[in-house]
Amino acid sequence: MLADQGLEMLEEKECLDLLAAQSIGRVAISVGALPAIFPVNYRVVGGDVMFRTGDGLKSRAALEGNVVGFEVDDFDAERLAGWSVMIVGQARVVDDEERRLLGNLGLSPWARGDRGHLVRIHPELVSGRRIVGP
Amino acid sequence: MLADQGLEMLEEKECLDLLAAQSIGRVAISVGALPAIFPVNYRVVGGDVMFRTGDGLKSRAALEGNVVGFEVDDFDAERLAGWSVMIVGQARVVDDEERRLLGNLGLSPWARGDRGHLVRIHPELVSGRRIVGP
Repeated sequence: MLADQGLEMLEEKECLDLLAAQSIGRVAISVGALPAIFPVNYRVVGGDVMFRTGDGLKSRAALEGNVVGFEVDDFDAERLAGWSVMIVGQARVVDDEERRLLGNLGLSPWARGDRGHLVRIHPELVSGRRIVGP
Repeated sequence: MLADQGLEMLEEKECLDLLAAQSIGRVAISVGALPAIFPVNYRVVGGDVMFRTGDGLKSRAALEGNVVGFEVDDFDAERLAGWSVMIVGQARVVDDEERRLLGNLGLSPWARGDRGHLVRIHPELVSGRRIVGP
């Protein structure tokens, strides 16, 4: 369904490799009925996307176990080349015990202020596309 | 509501200036009940975001007049600095007459293949945030 002309679909393995190699992604959630996108810095741990957040829209979506979208991409405007990978999965807040087991993730939020919640998204759907330039 | 610790909220004017200065953004739509994010290259014309797309999820969302999210951002990993701007608005497909009036937008899609639809999003909600680093 996500296939499109001029775009090469990526294998799931390649999508997950690209996902693991990046550090900035974008979370898509619904706020009321409205779509919203928030950039976060993240790490992949055990195949899941993890990022820190404070009290707010993102942590609320995770606390409620919402299904969220998460996208990473990389584009080269000069070469008209690029790719994007998207996962969809349920977001949840990691509890204290799991946090202890995970140890130090080296995951520092850039913005100052309290970022007490660690959110984890397990990819249920994975898709990726690479631009086949003109 | 979108305010968050460590993040400076941007004025609407600054958001729209940043939006007009970029060329790659991300569209957020709902596919069924699932959130999806697609990168596009775009231009701002008359204050509206315009991008080209083929038959698919993005054009279908526009043809149905869906409310979509659109986000642009820029981050500097070394300086731990960056900003993001998000707009929410109804997407619609530009008809042939409006297209003629608009003339050549210089808006070439990167991917080859048919990108016959011109989609226009009028910003109803505008918000932006700048990271205040540690």
